[in-house]
Amino acid sequence: MHVQVGIVMGSDSDWGVMSKAAHVLRELGVRAEVRVLSAHRTPDAAAEYARSAAARGLKVIIAGAGRAAHLPGVLAAYTQLPVVGVPVGGGPLGGIDALYSIVQMPPGVPVAAMAVDGAQNAGILAAQILALSDSGLAERLAEYRRRMAEGVAEKDRRISAEWQE
Amino acid sequence: MHVQVGIVMGSDSDWGVMSKAAHVLRELGVRAEVRVLSAHRTPDAAAEYARSAAARGLKVIIAGAGRAAHLPGVLAAYTQLPVVGVPVGGGPLGGIDALYSIVQMPPGVPVAAMAVDGAQNAGILAAQILALSDSGLAERLAEYRRRMAEGVAEKDRRISAEWQE
Amino acid sequence: MHVQVGIVMGSDSDWGVMSKAAHVLRELGVRAEVRVLSAHRTPDAAAEYARSAAARGLKVIIAGAGRAAHLPGVLAAYTQLPVVGVPVGGGPLGGIDALYSIVQMPPGVPVAAMAVDGAQNAGILAAQILALSDSGLAERLAEYRRRMAEGVAEKDRRISAEWQE
Amino acid sequence: MHVQVGIVMGSDSDWGVMSKAAHVLRELGVRAEVRVLSAHRTPDAAAEYARSAAARGLKVIIAGAGRAAHLPGVLAAYTQLPVVGVPVGGGPLGGIDALYSIVQMPPGVPVAAMAVDGAQNAGILAAQILALSDSGLAERLAEYRRRMAEGVAEKDRRISAEWQE
Amino acid sequence: MHVQVGIVMGSDSDWGVMSKAAHVLRELGVRAEVRVLSAHRTPDAAAEYARSAAARGLKVIIAGAGRAAHLPGVLAAYTQLPVVGVPVGGGPLGGIDALYSIVQMPPGVPVAAMAVDGAQNAGILAAQILALSDSGLAERLAEYRRRMAEGVAEKDRRISAEWQE
Amino acid sequence: MHVQVGIVMGSDSDWGVMSKAAHVLRELGVRAEVRVLSAHRTPDAAAEYARSAAARGLKVIIAGAGRAAHLPGVLAAYTQLPVVGVPVGGGPLGGIDALYSIVQMPPGVPVAAMAVDGAQNAGILAAQILALSDSGLAERLAEYRRRMAEGVAEKDRRISAEWQE
Amino acid sequence: MHVQVGIVMGSDSDWGVMSKAAHVLRELGVRAEVRVLSAHRTPDAAAEYARSAAARGLKVIIAGAGRAAHLPGVLAAYTQLPVVGVPVGGGPLGGIDALYSIVQMPPGVPVAAMAVDGAQNAGILAAQILALSDSGLAERLAEYRRRMAEGVAEKDRRISAEWQE
Amino acid sequence: MHVQVGIVMGSDSDWGVMSKAAHVLRELGVRAEVRVLSAHRTPDAAAEYARSAAARGLKVIIAGAGRAAHLPGVLAAYTQLPVVGVPVGGGPLGGIDALYSIVQMPPGVPVAAMAVDGAQNAGILAAQILALSDSGLAERLAEYRRRMAEGVAEKDRRISAEWQE
Repeated sequence: MHVQVGIVMGSDSDWGVMSKAAHVLRELGVRAEVRVLSAHRTPDAAAEYARSAAARGLKVIIAGAGRAAHLPGVLAAYTQLPVVGVPVGGGPLGGIDALYSIVQMPPGVPVAAMAVDGAQNAGILAAQILALSDSGLAERLAEYRRRMAEGVAEKDRRISAEWQE
Repeated sequence: MHVQVGIVMGSDSDWGVMSKAAHVLRELGVRAEVRVLSAHRTPDAAAEYARSAAARGLKVIIAGAGRAAHLPGVLAAYTQLPVVGVPVGGGPLGGIDALYSIVQMPPGVPVAAMAVDGAQNAGILAAQILALSDSGLAERLAEYRRRMAEGVAEKDRRISAEWQE
Repeated sequence: MHVQVGIVMGSDSDWGVMSKAAHVLRELGVRAEVRVLSAHRTPDAAAEYARSAAARGLKVIIAGAGRAAHLPGVLAAYTQLPVVGVPVGGGPLGGIDALYSIVQMPPGVPVAAMAVDGAQNAGILAAQILALSDSGLAERLAEYRRRMAEGVAEKDRRISAEWQE
Repeated sequence: MHVQVGIVMGSDSDWGVMSKAAHVLRELGVRAEVRVLSAHRTPDAAAEYARSAAARGLKVIIAGAGRAAHLPGVLAAYTQLPVVGVPVGGGPLGGIDALYSIVQMPPGVPVAAMAVDGAQNAGILAAQILALSDSGLAERLAEYRRRMAEGVAEKDRRISAEWQE
Repeated sequence: MHVQVGIVMGSDSDWGVMSKAAHVLRELGVRAEVRVLSAHRTPDAAAEYARSAAARGLKVIIAGAGRAAHLPGVLAAYTQLPVVGVPVGGGPLGGIDALYSIVQMPPGVPVAAMAVDGAQNAGILAAQILALSDSGLAERLAEYRRRMAEGVAEKDRRISAEWQE
Repeated sequence: MHVQVGIVMGSDSDWGVMSKAAHVLRELGVRAEVRVLSAHRTPDAAAEYARSAAARGLKVIIAGAGRAAHLPGVLAAYTQLPVVGVPVGGGPLGGIDALYSIVQMPPGVPVAAMAVDGAQNAGILAAQILALSDSGLAERLAEYRRRMAEGVAEKDRRISAEWQE
Repeated sequence: MHVQVGIVMGSDSDWGVMSKAAHVLRELGVRAEVRVLSAHRTPDAAAEYARSAAARGLKVIIAGAGRAAHLPGVLAAYTQLPVVGVPVGGGPLGGIDALYSIVQMPPGVPVAAMAVDGAQNAGILAAQILALSDSGLAERLAEYRRRMAEGVAEKDRRISAEWQE
Repeated sequence: MHVQVGIVMGSDSDWGVMSKAAHVLRELGVRAEVRVLSAHRTPDAAAEYARSAAARGLKVIIAGAGRAAHLPGVLAAYTQLPVVGVPVGGGPLGGIDALYSIVQMPPGVPVAAMAVDGAQNAGILAAQILALSDSGLAERLAEYRRRMAEGVAEKDRRISAEWQE
């Protein structure tokens, strides 16, 4: 199976957050590549990456960045593949700056914004998109959600019982 | 062609914003249905809508709501189709409340958040997702983007020239 | 005495905060049950819990959640028992996201919002509601408030005296 | 039937918002009294009102105020009746100031905060509390919710049909 | 010399911040008393404190509180002495809640708001007010400001020189 | 009687707000002068105004400004008279910018911050300060507060009665 | 004299704000060109504009944009000329989104942020930069500042006199 | 080469942040001086510093401050050299207060605002301004940007490769 998702981040310091997207995709059996590309420090490389993404077989791009997080929007300007944006938190403004920079895109060029530091959901959303034409992945996603629900139910039984004692 | 996108809003007062999603999809040749379903006032209908969406052939759900905008997240809880959330602005907090309620989803159940009142982009994102397996739509999207770019270029020529005079 | 208050949280990680509601109710002699139910990961269980709550004899539901904290509003959609919502803080946005998601409910389906991490007050409010028809509880609440006032007076004497020395 | 709910506001300019609480209670058949009492300009009257409320037969107090909205908290300091707080918006900060002043109560003295300008929900919550021991009111509330749901369904049919044409 | 300034806080946990007001007043030779009085847990004591303050010879009241910081406003409701309010930070909202609750007072009853955790300035402002009719204190304040300016100049010389080396 | 209060604003566009300070002082029988001085456009005039204020007999300075509202802090740097700061709202950030610029003064140089657009309270606070050594003014202030309380009571009677009808 | 300043905006709807930069530069005798270039809709044109700016003789670029205002940062990525960014307000978030997107640039690629809608200051800053090597412009700027100061002084005399009457 | 840039901070506690401006300028071969001057505690020294800056050969002033960060604006009031402002974070409001105090300057007196704690970019912007008339510096800046881009590319290769393994 070829690479279907590109995970891009503006700085290697974002990897602690963005690796959650990579890992959940691996767990769901989706191949992803990981890149460090900066909208401001390597703008040509970022533009070229997005411009050529569809031709190289990518279906979804996940991009994470902090502060004035322009990377997702800049990539979206050069491709019509769906771009999922992850605001990376942690600076003095706690990630609100990154959230606004990612979510408030102007009409015409959407970015699908996730929660601050919500890289795991970026991976899941990418899988949901790919699953529209991949029934095996759809079933793996359904199984993932069942395990998640069972995890909640298990915690429900434990905490509920502990309190009653 | 059957309906591929469901556009759902929590109140008919959201239609002024959400109709932009419907119109851009129509312009791009994507069939959409429009529904008013409330996460709080008609929760069973909302749950049933999402639960049955995939079986009815829907591929993407667009949901808009204001204030404590639970609708996109509630729908996402009942389906693994991609859900695109549109925070509807205009109340006393200007839409920040709706934005946070939509974008800050917990790990496991993503919602693709758009800008406040960003319904047009919700339609475009839905089309981008559908275009992954519909080359005709992909071409119409590319044409849409070309016209958009030409619109900017036209304004550039006009304002640039007016100033020089 | 049967269980009168249900304390529900979206994740077991909320228990550190929500246990304060459970403990103050126990201190006031009110029986409560504790559950982990997720509006997004176990939506059917959450809906069923609220739908059946009144019939099982519950009088008040206390629900806590963080980030896009939909749980209190989702429970309120399925019951007309009073629902008290506790925004759980601690994420990148510090709990403002949870506060807005809980307090900004649309007309028709109220949630009684507490302070961020204000689970102790959720327990006290539930007791105040129950005390409307339980004079013994009303007296225990009055005693609780007297002890609280005496605690302040005691600290007043100590700090006031220390400074004068 | 005697008066069960006190609706208090800090200024007559809040009546435009707070009257929604009064009207929904009248619609639900709950008797309410309406008062203008200021935590800052008539503090003794406000304190006395809350201190004597239970003895006069009140069950719930609804209090609305704007800006540094101390009124709900000040009333709650003098009574153990449930106090529902309505942040009134409209000033330079749009009601965030009133929301924080009402919802962020310290441990021991809860106020049930509603949305900014959410006076209608304050009335409904008061009715939900009273309905715990008033089955006639419980039925009227259930009927209110059914009509509300039917209103959504009616709008759903209309907008859905209009779009399909 | 009798006590001229009352320093009041809503909880003994505020003493870490509020002690800065007490110490700067001592350094400036102004006698102050320190009290723990809660607007919500001991409202009668707080009201009585403010009501009797002028008669007991107080000239200025400094009040600090966190979260829904009603204490300064409540005291100001019962006295026409100048009340200086100190928002105490540190909770989930970082003190913005306390700041808004203190500074956004309605017309008619002012509170002089300081910065979040700005208790030292509260002491200095109280001294500036008292110095209007106490020339000895005015001179001590002037000396305090000169030392402060010299402290800046000293740091200027040190850092400026270190960098040049 | 000589001028005791200086009312300073950064721009004549602030007069709509700041005139409320001037009028309430006139109503209370306190003489005030009104000046337009800009911390940024006429910094020498502003500095000189503050530096000479005490010698000219002023007791309190009220300063209002919008946006990056440096004027109150700049005046406070040149005088040890109490400086009352009024954040003037109305720009794109609604006055939050002015509020933070005024209230968040560093240790050593306090400004007494009022609510956004709270110029009336600035006048009242100035009068409260002056009343510490002017018993006639103290009595006029007390009378002012009595009328204010009677105004609330009058509105209480009217709205309370109208609702009962 | 050739064009020294490029004024770029992301949409012609920004011209109402951005024209203030153009006009103040004309008033100061600095030639500027005006362009509409979108970071998202015409990214290649925007990149090319910045990349070639220095070679075409530009010295400063002023860029204005609203919402997720990526334009100034994107231009700064392609040139080492100073880039001045103007957040354009007016959307649901009032311009805070644009401000954060412009000012919170990562280390390495600065943008000089102005106030929300602060295009006039962008023009003045550009002139201040150019004046470092243009003594005629420096003198015109000094004259501009003198007129500005005289404008304040004139308003000071008028309002001060009106109040005294 | 004489000193071309003045780096000024309001307190020596800002040096941890502001030293990044000094070091990047040294790395780029630009001479800078470092000063501690307070807009509030040593206002005359701050005013004199700015007033005499151009005559002493300075070309750019970089000023950093926290909380009510008036220093950059106050310096800009006394010079028409470009002033770059650095909001220093870290207090209870995380630096938003300093950001607003610096960036929201009124028309006529610009300050070039950097990100919260963005002192490195302040140094780079100063170098970009100086490079307009210093081709050697322009080349060193270009080299600095190339190394920065190569640093990103190096991290790209490493993380990309590690993930593929």
